[in-house]
Amino acid sequence: MVVARILATKGHAVVTALTTDTVLTIARKLTDHKIGAVVICQADNVIEGIVSERDVVRAISKDGPMALSRTAASVMTTNVKTCKAGDSEADLMVLMTTHRIRHLPVANNGKLVGMISIGDVVKHRIEAIEQESEHMKAYIATAG
Amino acid sequence: MVVARILATKGHAVVTALTTDTVLTIARKLTDHKIGAVVICQADNVIEGIVSERDVVRAISKDGPMALSRTAASVMTTNVKTCKAGDSEADLMVLMTTHRIRHLPVANNGKLVGMISIGDVVKHRIEAIEQESEHMKAYIATAG
Repeated sequence: MVVARILATKGHAVVTALTTDTVLTIARKLTDHKIGAVVICQADNVIEGIVSERDVVRAISKDGPMALSRTAASVMTTNVKTCKAGDSEADLMVLMTTHRIRHLPVANNGKLVGMISIGDVVKHRIEAIEQESEHMKAYIATAG
Repeated sequence: MVVARILATKGHAVVTALTTDTVLTIARKLTDHKIGAVVICQADNVIEGIVSERDVVRAISKDGPMALSRTAASVMTTNVKTCKAGDSEADLMVLMTTHRIRHLPVANNGKLVGMISIGDVVKHRIEAIEQESEHMKAYIATAG
């Protein structure tokens, strides 16, 4: 239950935006919250899309300064890959590697209930390595 | 030698830019090469800074459309964290988690010789898990 464990630490709150928000508004949300992606959501938390730092940079590359006044709807990724509460650490890693993405909204019946970033997964892996090392030391101390 | 193994697969080439390049030029480099960061380098491969998608988004948040004509020198991170050929997978993960970064230029005597992204590290972990599983199956088949 790695997804549940990560969310227990970081919380279930996700920064969202509307399809009508501009790219500039999205850029400011990303910077203000120090995050890499916002989920585009309806009021009832149904996921409509996702806009990452990469989507913002891509829009700028294409349209220059004009991109900043475009809407989230025109730059968002609509085929959103999500994860679910029961996914394993390997499941998350495979999803992120296969689709070359760094953010997985956590969905429950199509509704947004959290967000897992690639940084969260790596942080969790490090903690697991440290814990295994502690268990190993404790076992050796006991066995000795 | 995880750094060497990753570079053997992805190659040693790194997309670089000059301190005088504009933010718009950097954005286009990131998009054209489908990467998340460029290293700002002198001609002799001495690392001067790094500009990531996050730096581009942050500059836009601050200055709006004007940001696109600013220079790389004015938006780059100059205190660049690097890794070296002998670093372990855990070393890379700790560096990335501690500093909340997703790109580690590989340095040899202060000169750029490759780039490791958080995606590369996760991909390597998945391959290691798959390999362990194969070894386990082979062992069980032999033991049985």
